[in-house]
Amino acid sequence: MNGNQLIGNSESAEGDSTFNAINPGTGDTLEPAFHEATQGEIDKALELAKGAALFLRNTSGSDRKRLLDAIAEEMEADAEAIKDRVGAETGYPQPRLDGEFGRTVMQLRVFGKVAEEGDWVGPRIDTAIPDREPLPKPDLRRMLVPVGPVVIFGASNFPLAISVAGGDPASALAAGCPIVTKGHPSHPGSSELVARAMLRGVEKAGFPEGTFSMLQGATNETGKALVEHPDTRAVAFTGSLRGGRALFDIAAARPNPIPVYAEMGSVNPQFVFPEKLNSDPAQFAESLFGSVTMGNGQFCTCPSLVFVPEGDGLQKMTARYLELVGESSGAALLNSGIASAFSQGIDQWRGIDGVEVLGEGTLEGTAVGAGPVIAKVSLEDFTKDPEPFMDEVFGPSTMFVVCPDTEGFVGACSAFDGQLGSSVHCNDDELISSKDLIGQISEFAGRVCVNSFPTGIEVCDSIHHGGPYPATTDAQHTSIGTAGISRWGRPISYQGTPDALLPDELKNDNPLGMMRLVDGQWTRDPVD
Amino acid sequence: MNGNQLIGNSESAEGDSTFNAINPGTGDTLEPAFHEATQGEIDKALELAKGAALFLRNTSGSDRKRLLDAIAEEMEADAEAIKDRVGAETGYPQPRLDGEFGRTVMQLRVFGKVAEEGDWVGPRIDTAIPDREPLPKPDLRRMLVPVGPVVIFGASNFPLAISVAGGDPASALAAGCPIVTKGHPSHPGSSELVARAMLRGVEKAGFPEGTFSMLQGATNETGKALVEHPDTRAVAFTGSLRGGRALFDIAAARPNPIPVYAEMGSVNPQFVFPEKLNSDPAQFAESLFGSVTMGNGQFCTCPSLVFVPEGDGLQKMTARYLELVGESSGAALLNSGIASAFSQGIDQWRGIDGVEVLGEGTLEGTAVGAGPVIAKVSLEDFTKDPEPFMDEVFGPSTMFVVCPDTEGFVGACSAFDGQLGSSVHCNDDELISSKDLIGQISEFAGRVCVNSFPTGIEVCDSIHHGGPYPATTDAQHTSIGTAGISRWGRPISYQGTPDALLPDELKNDNPLGMMRLVDGQWTRDPVD
Repeated sequence: MNGNQLIGNSESAEGDSTFNAINPGTGDTLEPAFHEATQGEIDKALELAKGAALFLRNTSGSDRKRLLDAIAEEMEADAEAIKDRVGAETGYPQPRLDGEFGRTVMQLRVFGKVAEEGDWVGPRIDTAIPDREPLPKPDLRRMLVPVGPVVIFGASNFPLAISVAGGDPASALAAGCPIVTKGHPSHPGSSELVARAMLRGVEKAGFPEGTFSMLQGATNETGKALVEHPDTRAVAFTGSLRGGRALFDIAAARPNPIPVYAEMGSVNPQFVFPEKLNSDPAQFAESLFGSVTMGNGQFCTCPSLVFVPEGDGLQKMTARYLELVGESSGAALLNSGIASAFSQGIDQWRGIDGVEVLGEGTLEGTAVGAGPVIAKVSLEDFTKDPEPFMDEVFGPSTMFVVCPDTEGFVGACSAFDGQLGSSVHCNDDELISSKDLIGQISEFAGRVCVNSFPTGIEVCDSIHHGGPYPATTDAQHTSIGTAGISRWGRPISYQGTPDALLPDELKNDNPLGMMRLVDGQWTRDPVD
Repeated sequence: MNGNQLIGNSESAEGDSTFNAINPGTGDTLEPAFHEATQGEIDKALELAKGAALFLRNTSGSDRKRLLDAIAEEMEADAEAIKDRVGAETGYPQPRLDGEFGRTVMQLRVFGKVAEEGDWVGPRIDTAIPDREPLPKPDLRRMLVPVGPVVIFGASNFPLAISVAGGDPASALAAGCPIVTKGHPSHPGSSELVARAMLRGVEKAGFPEGTFSMLQGATNETGKALVEHPDTRAVAFTGSLRGGRALFDIAAARPNPIPVYAEMGSVNPQFVFPEKLNSDPAQFAESLFGSVTMGNGQFCTCPSLVFVPEGDGLQKMTARYLELVGESSGAALLNSGIASAFSQGIDQWRGIDGVEVLGEGTLEGTAVGAGPVIAKVSLEDFTKDPEPFMDEVFGPSTMFVVCPDTEGFVGACSAFDGQLGSSVHCNDDELISSKDLIGQISEFAGRVCVNSFPTGIEVCDSIHHGGPYPATTDAQHTSIGTAGISRWGRPISYQGTPDALLPDELKNDNPLGMMRLVDGQWTRDPVD
């Protein structure tokens, strides 16, 4: 680790301005210093990526699986060093480091399989009818092809799983797109170690220089230059609404606009029915507390607003939650910016009419961090002006919105713009009455959970981690799970093209054995 | 026909400013006058659409098929009056009117089938593994749901097939989205007659007020207000680069940005190999001329740039093309704006170094129109500054880019940004040498044609009518063909949701018999 930019096979450190990571547990400055990427370094990374794009485009899914597996192996070979550095840069405890590392390597392998299976290109074939009247029908065949170089911004809160070798880069490589990643400035050392593993994987798999580069940067200007670069074809980002929107605006103002897939968090409203709550209020408090304090609340799926009917169950649940808050000694937050935004957010809560902060945990033995906070407001006060409650207070906080009964749940839904997730907690008897509510939630949420909290996202085919704005800048795509690969493809049709010139996915004899839509029928059969 | 806005079940004409259609054949002003929609009328149309959205969302695919079939029937019931008015407003000859009307009604029925089959929602199911270690796997199920109210701008050049009842509205209704259409000001009467047929269809099918509204307008302000309206969730547009980009910019600047699916035309480069050309130069000229003058060149897929090797074949082809130009008496253009832009475009060609206008057809018996124009430039002059050749001269023009041989074809490709279509014309022996060229074309084109011109778009599953910017504002979607329906859906995941609360598409017993991705396998089987 030396703080260099890793641009294809070269290293450089041309920028004068530097920054260091801080250990949020101890407050210590970590070595080495990292250089801000220069325009020249950005140009070089994207020039190499552009050069690699044609090679990647012509690789098979099996080639790309080999690449992703090689990266996974190189990650595993350096697992301890990577996890140690992530721990130092984030303050995450060992189980979290182990879990996130495992998920990251698993994602690389999952996307290798996705590449090999190839279903994501969605092959469709309509065969010719030369003697159709009044006009002959041409042979048409359609599939997705890779969009070209992708710029990926590492997230602060998942230094492995949503960063340099995370789901965004894994899916982009699986699709055949070269990538330029910007490491998050909170964990540049983690980014460098991971990037070096990726570069070893690229070399081992025989992929060309420019398949992957990693640049460091802590300024908005560096991000802007990456998004504005003429060879950038698409962008992925996970972070704040302000950051994601800024990148979206830059991309939309380009001479040729490009998509920015920004996942920007949300407050993920929870709706709790009384019988469910009353059946075990303490257990509900413990589950909620576990979800809210997972990663010390630094999850975009943190359940930050909990609509709950007043009564005995709420009192018992609150009492248990306050016990848990009292027992907590807090935990690290990723950086001082997040820590101060958290305390400002809680201060803003105090300034809202009707909000009462019920309890605040202490912070012990950690330089940069926070203890959990619990507050409440009445549905009436919430409804008067829901706007201030829509701002995510990123950290271990949640607010109970106390409702006279469950009648107000459906009405409360109209307050919400796009949300990543939202949950209904109910027992079997309450299921039927939750039907309308689930319909309303479906209007704003990307994921509807029944009797579970939105934290802990399963990486699979059926996950959607997204939602209407402001949860994301593109409601059609997920940033987690196998469907995320479709961000990196665009359709193309081949008309009247001889078999020899078609990609394997569209050839008559279906050499890849794919499921294809042929003349309106799903089949793995060859075309006659 | 009375010139009113048709807003759900109401009619109004609140705008002071009015406009009339002009018959481009005769130059006559056509009655009645049409009113510019007011902000109040726009608000009302979108309020009704918002109200209808929840109803539409809960309709089945079969319900939507019934709606689209009813609209098709009502269109057919008024076919003669509609075609007569379209003819008067466009100057299109009867075969074109018949053809476009037939295609429009066919599209409505095709999208009815797409709605009923339901494949477009892409159901994916991952079943739970409650005893998985270290954490249980939840049940997750994913599908597309409709995005909500869609604003659709009618195109000038396809007053039926890409307008009030065209592919955009048909696909949006099939997806379960209510629509507000703005008729193109060149053919407001056609728009009104079609809208009345649609409203009759909505009523007949028992769909609510607000499922469909149609507003008239000739100003940019009306378009802006429609795109800015807070209840608008997505926009479709087919027209000029300037118009499409303006709408895109307005949508991107909204507090909550929404997608604009704008198809903005292109020059659709053609690459002609010598043996193919030499085998029958006159035939090639005739086919090219037929494609260029289809709709008098007012097709976004018009082959406007033809790369062709110099030699005897080119001379013969040119001679025949000039004969055809000479024999032509021209044809109407849709409006005086298009006619003057066409002659300005030809004037600009004359100002480009090395461009020679070889022939210009006359215009006889038509008030607003143009005759065909053919020009040429050398590859060397083209390569010096390709930029001016990228501007679509909308109308019956094409330019030969004369190449010393076919070596320059691949290099010329680097000049192109996004294009809707591009063709390679070659005989069997030339196929192999065209492989690299097809690879290069795939980098910029949405559709690659071998031995056919891009005009005449087949409406089917496998068509892609789109491409990178500036062909469109969203390279991931098509505006023609069944895949266009995916513009109007966004994914949602249901986690741990009991069967009774799931949409039919995701229920265990697969009541709709859909092909679904269940635990990684494509199947129509029920989930155990």
